[in-house]
Amino acid sequence: MSNSPFIHDDFLLQTRAARELYHGYAEGLPIIDYHCHLKPSEIAGDKRWENITQIWLYGDHYKWRAMRTAGVPERLCTGGDTSDWEKFEAYAGIMPKALRNPLYHWTHLELSRYFGVTDRLLGPDTAKSIYDDCNRVITAPDFSCRSLMTRSKVEVVCTTDDPVDSLADHIAIAADASFSVQVRPTWRPDLAYAVDRPEAFLAWLGKLEAAACVEIGNLEAFLSAIRQRHAFFHAHGCRLSDRGLDTVYGDDCTASQAATIFDKARARQPLDPVEIRRFKSFMLFELGVMDAESGWTQQIHYGALRNNNTAMFRALGPDTGFDSIDDQPVAQGLSRYLDRLALAGKLPRTIIYNLNPRDNELIATMLGNFQDGEVAGKLQMGSGWWFLDQTDGMTRQIEALSQLGLLSQFVGMLTDSRSFLSYTRHEYFRRLLCNILGADMERGLIPNDLALVGKMVADISYHNARNYFGFFSK
Amino acid sequence: MSNSPFIHDDFLLQTRAARELYHGYAEGLPIIDYHCHLKPSEIAGDKRWENITQIWLYGDHYKWRAMRTAGVPERLCTGGDTSDWEKFEAYAGIMPKALRNPLYHWTHLELSRYFGVTDRLLGPDTAKSIYDDCNRVITAPDFSCRSLMTRSKVEVVCTTDDPVDSLADHIAIAADASFSVQVRPTWRPDLAYAVDRPEAFLAWLGKLEAAACVEIGNLEAFLSAIRQRHAFFHAHGCRLSDRGLDTVYGDDCTASQAATIFDKARARQPLDPVEIRRFKSFMLFELGVMDAESGWTQQIHYGALRNNNTAMFRALGPDTGFDSIDDQPVAQGLSRYLDRLALAGKLPRTIIYNLNPRDNELIATMLGNFQDGEVAGKLQMGSGWWFLDQTDGMTRQIEALSQLGLLSQFVGMLTDSRSFLSYTRHEYFRRLLCNILGADMERGLIPNDLALVGKMVADISYHNARNYFGFFSK
Amino acid sequence: MSNSPFIHDDFLLQTRAARELYHGYAEGLPIIDYHCHLKPSEIAGDKRWENITQIWLYGDHYKWRAMRTAGVPERLCTGGDTSDWEKFEAYAGIMPKALRNPLYHWTHLELSRYFGVTDRLLGPDTAKSIYDDCNRVITAPDFSCRSLMTRSKVEVVCTTDDPVDSLADHIAIAADASFSVQVRPTWRPDLAYAVDRPEAFLAWLGKLEAAACVEIGNLEAFLSAIRQRHAFFHAHGCRLSDRGLDTVYGDDCTASQAATIFDKARARQPLDPVEIRRFKSFMLFELGVMDAESGWTQQIHYGALRNNNTAMFRALGPDTGFDSIDDQPVAQGLSRYLDRLALAGKLPRTIIYNLNPRDNELIATMLGNFQDGEVAGKLQMGSGWWFLDQTDGMTRQIEALSQLGLLSQFVGMLTDSRSFLSYTRHEYFRRLLCNILGADMERGLIPNDLALVGKMVADISYHNARNYFGFFSK
Repeated sequence: MSNSPFIHDDFLLQTRAARELYHGYAEGLPIIDYHCHLKPSEIAGDKRWENITQIWLYGDHYKWRAMRTAGVPERLCTGGDTSDWEKFEAYAGIMPKALRNPLYHWTHLELSRYFGVTDRLLGPDTAKSIYDDCNRVITAPDFSCRSLMTRSKVEVVCTTDDPVDSLADHIAIAADASFSVQVRPTWRPDLAYAVDRPEAFLAWLGKLEAAACVEIGNLEAFLSAIRQRHAFFHAHGCRLSDRGLDTVYGDDCTASQAATIFDKARARQPLDPVEIRRFKSFMLFELGVMDAESGWTQQIHYGALRNNNTAMFRALGPDTGFDSIDDQPVAQGLSRYLDRLALAGKLPRTIIYNLNPRDNELIATMLGNFQDGEVAGKLQMGSGWWFLDQTDGMTRQIEALSQLGLLSQFVGMLTDSRSFLSYTRHEYFRRLLCNILGADMERGLIPNDLALVGKMVADISYHNARNYFGFFSK
Repeated sequence: MSNSPFIHDDFLLQTRAARELYHGYAEGLPIIDYHCHLKPSEIAGDKRWENITQIWLYGDHYKWRAMRTAGVPERLCTGGDTSDWEKFEAYAGIMPKALRNPLYHWTHLELSRYFGVTDRLLGPDTAKSIYDDCNRVITAPDFSCRSLMTRSKVEVVCTTDDPVDSLADHIAIAADASFSVQVRPTWRPDLAYAVDRPEAFLAWLGKLEAAACVEIGNLEAFLSAIRQRHAFFHAHGCRLSDRGLDTVYGDDCTASQAATIFDKARARQPLDPVEIRRFKSFMLFELGVMDAESGWTQQIHYGALRNNNTAMFRALGPDTGFDSIDDQPVAQGLSRYLDRLALAGKLPRTIIYNLNPRDNELIATMLGNFQDGEVAGKLQMGSGWWFLDQTDGMTRQIEALSQLGLLSQFVGMLTDSRSFLSYTRHEYFRRLLCNILGADMERGLIPNDLALVGKMVADISYHNARNYFGFFSK
Repeated sequence: MSNSPFIHDDFLLQTRAARELYHGYAEGLPIIDYHCHLKPSEIAGDKRWENITQIWLYGDHYKWRAMRTAGVPERLCTGGDTSDWEKFEAYAGIMPKALRNPLYHWTHLELSRYFGVTDRLLGPDTAKSIYDDCNRVITAPDFSCRSLMTRSKVEVVCTTDDPVDSLADHIAIAADASFSVQVRPTWRPDLAYAVDRPEAFLAWLGKLEAAACVEIGNLEAFLSAIRQRHAFFHAHGCRLSDRGLDTVYGDDCTASQAATIFDKARARQPLDPVEIRRFKSFMLFELGVMDAESGWTQQIHYGALRNNNTAMFRALGPDTGFDSIDDQPVAQGLSRYLDRLALAGKLPRTIIYNLNPRDNELIATMLGNFQDGEVAGKLQMGSGWWFLDQTDGMTRQIEALSQLGLLSQFVGMLTDSRSFLSYTRHEYFRRLLCNILGADMERGLIPNDLALVGKMVADISYHNARNYFGFFSK
């Protein structure tokens, strides 16, 4: 094997133009991480870890999936009867089997950037030395979640929050003048339309009543309580919302139909599929209007088929690595949803994330139907999401957006992560972007003009997001 | 920035083999543009323009979409209260934001080939000088639509026409011995099965009665009138038909069922979705039979989701940049449609254009089911259509057709355009094709035999279309 | 044209790393061909051929499709009134038109490896000399199907068999100590759930009664007879099953519902679509349980739309080149099917082959939901199937599996072929795999460590399959 480190200065950068773009225009920029799943409580408490297993393997279902695929038993993935070292050793053991999987890159990028391990590849032979080296770093005084964010030049992070959340942690973080990173909540009201899961819906209704300090006897009161929480989130810095959907619902549903369905749901009466679709359509519209009126950006994540493995769901709960890509149609529902908002003059800035890459071109062209010439790049195609957050997925998203929209307007990368080590994803994205554009320059597909292309790189890496979301205005 | 022009002799040609193929076998060939949306009246009148805005920005929804995406207000796209210079300036202003979008290539190719602008890239700084230079060229005596066609070595263009059209312009053009380009009509009978849009259907029925000089009281008379128009089109040089469909309909429908549905539609009675599908299926079959009996080629364009933005549709009408890619299933309907024609011995030459690239492989394999060994390449996969008419889209179409069919039989490129400057698309396609084949030669994926591969290039660029459509026979 | 042969030592291998990987780690390995459609009777009788047309053109619908597409009439494809030479000449005649089609590679690989023809490309000019040269080879004493297998270093082949088959040929082959290749049956019970084709279903029921020597009056007896045959297959070396499905059925269906549907089917009463789906779902589950209990691997091939051309189906029957790619949804049915088996603790090793490449990512992520940490790579994404068994299709399958699963666990290539010359597909796959990994090494995307990557190559080429299927255990 060659002597140069696997993660080196020009990792992923195949051409001279790519290297010039990355080092000259992207590398040094701050990070705006406008969508993630960090826990605000951990930031508030400036979370620390005892060893690398805690930060790497306690909650990362990507790693668990790879381990299970490689034949590692569950007790070494999520199990409670194995030690942190044993879990780390198990993960290290499968690394040579993870070549070409994005974990191979993420893992070594994180080892390099946060732990200074650049001279060894993770594997069975190096597991112990790397474990020890990392733990020495992780237990040093300057290693905490806040220091990771600061060191990564993070300016903004947007967490993902339930509308009934008190935002106590966000309030505490904002009040702490010693920490300058903007930590903003994101409004994710999935349970407000979860009438296909009556228990969850009704439980949430109860929490909403408590959070809004009102009784909710009908749809009007329901919407009013939600609006109150929306204003509360806004007051505490929220500028983005999010929805998780299997597909996008754009059925017709009048307010009185919705009110009737709400009453039935509240009375625990069963709803038929048409009623469920109608209510979801109605609520999505109302929630979109709220976002538009507050000047927010709505995010739509659609296309996951969740909790496929019932036995493991019972054992471990959701978000433990048993989700995959769905194949429902989306074009017509999405079109009607966006159109209805546009027609009402209430279409907010919108980012659409598809999980099935076969929808890339559909989404990239759907955007163009609703670009209104008022906000540049008003509708956005989200960066490769979840399973697509890797070389092939990100490349295809960039390609579709380039050919069918304007890449230059792209607000770029986000981590979507639960880990404080994931800021290397921004680096990875920037390298990939520069590599694509550098290759184009060298092939004469775009002008060989470093300043022209470099500006685009910097915009996508940082400035577009800075301008688009309004985090620094007002 | 380097000094060589962006559009140079070897634009897109990455290998020596690619350059030899293009310059040796493709560059000099004439153009057969077998599908476009040029207005015959403009050709008949030898249309001229006062400035480049008129030819570039008056009707090009690709450009409008990009402008809207970049935040250009509608009044500078389609609006009536802005000057031609202001519109041009607005378009020039977004060009640096259009890197990687096909417009960047189309724009500079057209500037180079038709206006001689090779030394500058379009942008805010060059807008005025390029506007002035182009307008000098455009107002010169030798710049007219006919001269553009002649200069581009166009031999045939097929416009897109309504069966009720008088073809007066085509007749006039054909009678003009001073103009040697074949300008043929194409039969596009979309309104003949538009029973889901009763007003449009009935209005068309009235026009058909007038055009065919018959009263249409039932389905039989309807078909008879259509057949009469079909013969009229044939007499005036028509050899291709076209259909625009959301998906392809292959439901069972007897003649008596169709007659009943027709009577209901004519009596303005509402049709249910099954009736609509049946009637479309019936008419598609009958129209296919007509094409087969006349030796025509039928084209099927399917998969667009149109007029998504109701507010803008009300303001600007159709074809103004608010369409996108749909995701309906197509395999079974298309199979049954083609099978029914084949079983009746009435399957015409057929070109299928899919708008969602995820259907590429489906379509490429569907062709093989109905290739009958009588006409080489009888079923064709259309070149990348509409949104797919760009590097990635065309490359993937070529790849699917190559791996799953015979690329060598491909009838190649068409402009599908409303602009007389679009013949550069043929150049673009030929360069791309040569680049793909040249790379294959250098990698040893196909024999390094210039004559062998060059023949294939020339066939796809010109000779296949010449032989397939029969424009030069009889 | 250059003098080096088209198929040379480094065919497909673009980088030095690729060449080192292939020649160092893949080239010399034996072949485990775990899925094919060879006729056991031909192996039992050590089939020989009189000329190359018999082995190449008597049953190869890939070649027929290409010939029909190139305008070759049916009588020169499948027709009975043309000579073997005329058919060969017709095929040779279209070869220059098959550039970029996989046939071009398969054809020349087979000419090179089995007939020693390396100095000429097949085409009209070389047809006669190649025909003569090949026929000299084919009629030599050492050219027979067994010698082809032995010479190709085949260790195992798994044929595809009906549960009612007597396995007489397999028994004869196994008893012949002079032939050391393992020839194992595969259990393909498609007719056991073909209740949408009542004639075929009932005819099969009759054969099953005969094979199992029982009367089958109800569902219980039906399942019992199937189980008996399953055990019989197991006793004769079967370790894999297979299903051919349009999509995967996972509807709810109780045993008593299934029993009622079975009774109706047996009584020739019509079934509605819901009953058909239910019965298929029920049987798929039961068949999966049988496989799990026997330690077998189940294969699922889904997504073909078969017999699209009714006229040709009547003339030639199935599997003659009139099938293509379907576009039904699959995610939810497949998820429920696998989940139900997993929940019952009866999920066997499973290989899923999708025919529409747009499902690649869906399938690659579905696997991860059911990897259980007990068997490494328990769920597998099948190598590019049927139409996808070519450069682009295989590359995209490898890419999806790499990014979304673990490529290292892949059991690799199979021929899926009816021809004894198809072992060159394993060579082709190995070259492609090495080319992909070699390029990654040279670009720094994976470590430039020949031993590390070479081990992965060898595993995928041979060792994974050897370990996964258990052909050499017990």
